[in-house]
Amino acid sequence: MLVVMQHDATPDDVRRVVATIEEMGYQARPLPGKQRTAVGVVGNDGRLDAARFLGLPGVAEVLHITQPFKQVSREWKSESTVVRLPGGVTIGGDEVVVMAGPCSVESETQILEAAHAVREAGAVILRGGAFKPRTSPYSFQGLGRRGLELLAKAREETGLLIVTEVMESEAVEMVAEVADIVQVGARNMQNFALLKRLGKLKQPVLLKRGLSATITELLLSAEYLLAEGNDQVILCERGIRGFDAVTRNVFDLAAVPVVHKLSHLPIIADPSHGTGQRDKVLPMARAAVAAGADGIMVEVHPRPERALSDGAQSLAPDEFAELMRQCRAIAEVIGRRVAEPVEV
Amino acid sequence: MLVVMQHDATPDDVRRVVATIEEMGYQARPLPGKQRTAVGVVGNDGRLDAARFLGLPGVAEVLHITQPFKQVSREWKSESTVVRLPGGVTIGGDEVVVMAGPCSVESETQILEAAHAVREAGAVILRGGAFKPRTSPYSFQGLGRRGLELLAKAREETGLLIVTEVMESEAVEMVAEVADIVQVGARNMQNFALLKRLGKLKQPVLLKRGLSATITELLLSAEYLLAEGNDQVILCERGIRGFDAVTRNVFDLAAVPVVHKLSHLPIIADPSHGTGQRDKVLPMARAAVAAGADGIMVEVHPRPERALSDGAQSLAPDEFAELMRQCRAIAEVIGRRVAEPVEV
Amino acid sequence: MLVVMQHDATPDDVRRVVATIEEMGYQARPLPGKQRTAVGVVGNDGRLDAARFLGLPGVAEVLHITQPFKQVSREWKSESTVVRLPGGVTIGGDEVVVMAGPCSVESETQILEAAHAVREAGAVILRGGAFKPRTSPYSFQGLGRRGLELLAKAREETGLLIVTEVMESEAVEMVAEVADIVQVGARNMQNFALLKRLGKLKQPVLLKRGLSATITELLLSAEYLLAEGNDQVILCERGIRGFDAVTRNVFDLAAVPVVHKLSHLPIIADPSHGTGQRDKVLPMARAAVAAGADGIMVEVHPRPERALSDGAQSLAPDEFAELMRQCRAIAEVIGRRVAEPVEV
Amino acid sequence: MLVVMQHDATPDDVRRVVATIEEMGYQARPLPGKQRTAVGVVGNDGRLDAARFLGLPGVAEVLHITQPFKQVSREWKSESTVVRLPGGVTIGGDEVVVMAGPCSVESETQILEAAHAVREAGAVILRGGAFKPRTSPYSFQGLGRRGLELLAKAREETGLLIVTEVMESEAVEMVAEVADIVQVGARNMQNFALLKRLGKLKQPVLLKRGLSATITELLLSAEYLLAEGNDQVILCERGIRGFDAVTRNVFDLAAVPVVHKLSHLPIIADPSHGTGQRDKVLPMARAAVAAGADGIMVEVHPRPERALSDGAQSLAPDEFAELMRQCRAIAEVIGRRVAEPVEV
Repeated sequence: MLVVMQHDATPDDVRRVVATIEEMGYQARPLPGKQRTAVGVVGNDGRLDAARFLGLPGVAEVLHITQPFKQVSREWKSESTVVRLPGGVTIGGDEVVVMAGPCSVESETQILEAAHAVREAGAVILRGGAFKPRTSPYSFQGLGRRGLELLAKAREETGLLIVTEVMESEAVEMVAEVADIVQVGARNMQNFALLKRLGKLKQPVLLKRGLSATITELLLSAEYLLAEGNDQVILCERGIRGFDAVTRNVFDLAAVPVVHKLSHLPIIADPSHGTGQRDKVLPMARAAVAAGADGIMVEVHPRPERALSDGAQSLAPDEFAELMRQCRAIAEVIGRRVAEPVEV
Repeated sequence: MLVVMQHDATPDDVRRVVATIEEMGYQARPLPGKQRTAVGVVGNDGRLDAARFLGLPGVAEVLHITQPFKQVSREWKSESTVVRLPGGVTIGGDEVVVMAGPCSVESETQILEAAHAVREAGAVILRGGAFKPRTSPYSFQGLGRRGLELLAKAREETGLLIVTEVMESEAVEMVAEVADIVQVGARNMQNFALLKRLGKLKQPVLLKRGLSATITELLLSAEYLLAEGNDQVILCERGIRGFDAVTRNVFDLAAVPVVHKLSHLPIIADPSHGTGQRDKVLPMARAAVAAGADGIMVEVHPRPERALSDGAQSLAPDEFAELMRQCRAIAEVIGRRVAEPVEV
Repeated sequence: MLVVMQHDATPDDVRRVVATIEEMGYQARPLPGKQRTAVGVVGNDGRLDAARFLGLPGVAEVLHITQPFKQVSREWKSESTVVRLPGGVTIGGDEVVVMAGPCSVESETQILEAAHAVREAGAVILRGGAFKPRTSPYSFQGLGRRGLELLAKAREETGLLIVTEVMESEAVEMVAEVADIVQVGARNMQNFALLKRLGKLKQPVLLKRGLSATITELLLSAEYLLAEGNDQVILCERGIRGFDAVTRNVFDLAAVPVVHKLSHLPIIADPSHGTGQRDKVLPMARAAVAAGADGIMVEVHPRPERALSDGAQSLAPDEFAELMRQCRAIAEVIGRRVAEPVEV
Repeated sequence: MLVVMQHDATPDDVRRVVATIEEMGYQARPLPGKQRTAVGVVGNDGRLDAARFLGLPGVAEVLHITQPFKQVSREWKSESTVVRLPGGVTIGGDEVVVMAGPCSVESETQILEAAHAVREAGAVILRGGAFKPRTSPYSFQGLGRRGLELLAKAREETGLLIVTEVMESEAVEMVAEVADIVQVGARNMQNFALLKRLGKLKQPVLLKRGLSATITELLLSAEYLLAEGNDQVILCERGIRGFDAVTRNVFDLAAVPVVHKLSHLPIIADPSHGTGQRDKVLPMARAAVAAGADGIMVEVHPRPERALSDGAQSLAPDEFAELMRQCRAIAEVIGRRVAEPVEV
C-alpha cells in the first residue's frame, strides 16, 4: 500500500502517516517525490484498510500494491484448481464442460424433454431454476421445492448432473440435497450472509459475476467461500451492465483470461445471459471456448416460444446440437476437449 | 406493449403474434408501417412478460408502453406518500429529514459521542451499522447484536430515531426490535427473499438503489415491499457505478426528480457514499436538497481518522454542523424546512 | 510514478526497471514489500509515459502518483482563474453566469425572440448553435454561416454575449468573428487538431466534457489549450453516458467540486443536456448552483414544441424566468450572486 | 415511431399529436390502451425527429420502431458488402484479414522490421500511426508526414497494404496518398466534419467504434460516409469504456454478430486496444475470429519494451506468429480462412 500525500502536505502530516503505519505494526517507507511525498507500507498482507489513511490530514489518495484477495489468488496457489464432480467430470482441467437446460423448471414434461435433448447433444450438466430471482414481483418466481424434485427426477432418468440456484441462506440445505453444483446468481454475488453459509457446504459453488462487479469484487466474493472452507468454486462471466440496449448485457469475455491470470479458480461463461438474444448465443459460445473458458452455460428449452422466462435467449434443441458440434471443434483447436456425458 | 416485427416477417408470423396475444386474453391491434409491422397489445396491466413474444419467429423486439411497476406508481396513487415516524417526524412531506451518524457502530463511546454531536447539530435520525456488508471477508463486519444494543442506548439518551441495515431474512426480527427504519443496502436491493420478508414488517423500510440499478429496477424492488403489504417505503440515491475512479460512485441526483415524477414514494440522497470523499459531501448535500430530496443521509464520526470503515467520507462533528446550517438555508429557498429534533 | 513488480519478478527484472528509470534521467527508489517489490520514480514532472515500463518483463502495473496534467492543475496555480468577458462579465469569481438560448439557431424571428426572452429573465450570454453535430446525417445540421450572422444580430439588439460551437479547425476563424466564447462540444473533446487550433485563439473557450470522459481526460484536453497559450478556458459538465435510459445522460454534478479541487479553471453545468427532460431542468439547475458551479447553460426556446432540435429539453421563456428567480436565491445562500445583464 | 401519451393526457393532447403527425405528411394511428394512449406514425422513413413530439403537452415518450439508419442497414441491402483492396484482398467475404504493426511509426528501422516480421507471419495489411491522438499534449504525437513516407517505403519493400489514421479534414488528402485504408480513430467517430470529407474519398475507410458509442451510433456514423458516396466502409470493435480498470477497455465482441445482423458492412476487431494487455491479446484474437469477425487488428512491435506508445499491449514478432497459427485454425473450424499475403 502506498499513501500518497497532497502536494502541500506538511512534514507533520507525513509524520502522522508514518506513526499510524507503525502503530498498526507495519513498516513505513517515505518516498519523497518532485511534486509530492508518498509513504510505502511494508509488511501488508492484504488486509489493511485504505480508509484508515484516507481519514488523515494531508493524504491525497491510497494506492494498492498488494491485491486485496488472498486464498483465491494464483500468487497464493499457483496450480489451477480442478473442481471434481460425481462421475468423474472435472472443471478447470483439460475439459470444457457444457451446462445446458431451461431458465426455469416449468413442468415435468418440460424439464425431462429438455434434459433428454441436451443429454443427447452432449451436455453433462443440466441447468434449471427452481427458485428464480425476478425483477418484478409479478413475474413467474419458479416452482420452488417441486422444481427441485423434478430436477432430481431428470438426473435419475438421464445421468446428467444438476446445477441450480439458491437465493437465501434458509434454502441452502434444501437445494444442496439435489444440486451437484449450487449456483449463486449475479444479483446475490455480494449477499455475504449467503456466501458465508455456502462456504460451509461440501458441494461446489458456481458464483456468477454481479452486473456491475469488478473482477476484484468477484474474486473477493469467492474469497468469502474459501475463507469459510469451501474451495470448490467455479466463477462465471455472464455479462455486465452496459450503456447499449442492443444486447441485454455486455458479455465481457476478457474476464476469462483475466481471471486465469489472477486466480487459480476455473471460470465458465454464459452466452445466453451475456447477450440475451438467441441468434448471438452460438457465435459467443464459440468465442467463449476460444477465449479459454473452462465451460459454458447455455439456456435450452424444448419450445423456446412457450418459455415462462428468458424465451428470447433460449436455444431450441437442434440449435444447441449445432452449438455443441462447433464448440467441440474449437476446443480441439486449442488443445482441449468438450466433456462427454457419463454413461448411465 | 408493442410487438415490433422484423421487416421481413411473413403474414403468418404476424398472425401468430396476434393469436398469442388473444390466447393470453388481451386485444391485438396490428399497426402496419412503411418498413415493418408492429402489433399493439391492449388491456395489459403491466404484468405481461415480453419474453413470451421475443421467442416467436419474425419478432424483432418488444417495446413497453405500460410501466412494469404498479402500486409504487404515481399513476396508481397520485398524492405523495408521507412516511410517519415516532415523535411526529415525517418523510415525504414539507420537511427535509437529516439522518446522520457513523458508518459502523464501533463502541459505546463512539456511538454515543456521534449521537450527541449529530443531535446537537440538528439531525433527527441516527444512522449506524451493526451488520456491515463488506467487499472483503477480512474487513470489519460490524458488532452485530451488540451494535444494535448500543444503538438502542443512543436513542434512549438522545431521543434520536434509529435507521440501521439488515442483511438477511433471519436477522429481520432482531433488527426491527431496535430500528425505527430498517435499511436495505445497495448490494441487497435485489435480494428478493429479504424484500418479501420486509414487506410483512410494520416499520418503514429505507431501500437503497443498487450500484447499477435502473430507476425502474429500484421501483420494482420497492414494488416487492408494497405487494407484500408494507407501503412505508423510502428510496435512497447513493451513487451508481461509473467509469471514473475520481469519485467512489457517480452521484446521480437527477434520480430525485425522476422518482418524484414516476412514483409517490419519498426519496432521500446519500452524498457520503455518493461521492466517497469528505470534502465533496457538503456541496453535494446542498445540491441534493436543492434538487428536491426528501432527506439526506450523512456519515459523521467523532474522529473520522479513527473510523473502522468509511473514514475517508465521514465528516467531523463541526463540519456536519456547518452542513446543517447550509442545508437549512437551501431548504427554505425552495419552500421546505429541515426537520428539527424532537425534544426528549 | 510507482512501477509495481509481479510477485515472481526476478532480481534481474527489478534491475532492468531501475536501469530504465535511470537511463531516462530520473531516480529509482526500490520499495521491497512482503508480497512484491515496487520501484518509485523520483523526479517525474508528469510527462513520463507508463507504457515504457508496462512493456518490461516482470512488471505487473504502473501506478501514477503525480497527476498527468500540469498547467491546468491547482498545484501549478493555486488561485482560481477568472475568465473576463466584454462588458465586465466574469466566470470563475463570485458571479454565477447564466447562458441561455435555443439549441439551434433556426430563423431570425426565433433567435431574436429567444434572445429578448432570456435577456429579460436575466441571462447575460446567449447560446445557439449555427453548426450542429448530429448523430444522424439526416437530422438538421444547423444554418451554418447564416446562423452566425443571426447571432451577431441578436447580440447587437440585446447586448447579450454569444457562445456558439465550432466543429472543425477550418471554421474556427469564422466562428471566432462572432463568438465571445467559442464552444467545443462533447463529441469533440478529444478532437486534438481542433484543440490545438483553439489554443492559439484570443477568445475564451468553453470545453464540454465528453460522454465518457474522465475528469482527468477533460483536464488533459484543457491542457492542450493552455499548452498552446490560451488560458481562458471554461469547463462544462453536461452529463455522461450511463446505463439507465430514464434520463438522456447521467448529470454528474460532483464533477463541479472535483474540478474545483484539482484545477483552477472555472466549471459550469448544463442541466438541459444533463437530463434531456424539460421538467428536470429546473431542479437540476438549482442543484448545479448549490454544488458550486460557476455558471449554468440552459436551453430556452420561444416555442419548444416547434424546435428543430432538442425540443424535449428546452424551457419555455416563462419556465426559464422562474429558473432564474430560484437560482438567484440559491446563489445568495452560498454567498454568490447571479450575474446580471450589462445595460446596452 | 410510436408517440406514447401520459396516462392523464387529455383528448386535446392526443388530437394535437395527431394533427402534428398529419401536418408533417405522415399518417397517425391512435392505439388506445388500458392505462394510456399511444399514437403510431405510419410512413416514417427513419428521418423523423422524436424531439418534435417530446415537446408537445401530454406526451410521455417516443418509441422508435424504424431504425434511424438506412443505407448501412441490412434491410436496405441484404447481401454483405465486400470491400475490395489492391492485390485482390477482400474484407467481408470468406477471408479473415489480419492487420498488424506498431501503434506508431517511430523510425525507418522500426517500421521496416515490424513490416517484415508481420509479413513473414502472414499479415496482409500493415498498421502504423503517423498521426497519433494522445490524451496528453505531452505524449509523443507521431512523426506526421515523415511517418507516412516510411509507411510507403514499408509497402514498397514488403507488398503489405497500409492502414493508417487521419485525425482532421485538412490532412485527408495527404494520408489518402499513402493509405490503402484510411482509419478513423475511436475519438473521432463522431467528428462529423471529418466523416463528411471521407465520404467523398475513393479509398475504403476503417471506422472505429467510439469509447461509449452504441452500435446504432456507430452505424449512423458509417451512414455519414455512405450518404456522401463512400460505401467501402469497414467497422471496428476496439473496446468500450467500462467500470473495471482491470483491463484498458471492455472488449465487446458481441458487437460482431450484432453488426452482422443489422448491417451489411464488414466488422473487424482489435484485441490490442480491446484489452490493453499483451497476454490477453492472443486469447481474445482467437475469440474474435470465433465470433465471426471479418478481420483482426493487432499491435506488433519489434521490441515492445522500447515502444513510444502502447508498449504494454504490443506483441513481439514471435508471439504474433503464434497468434496467426491459432487464428488460422479457428477460422477453418468455422468455414473461413485467414487471408494470405499477396506475393510481391
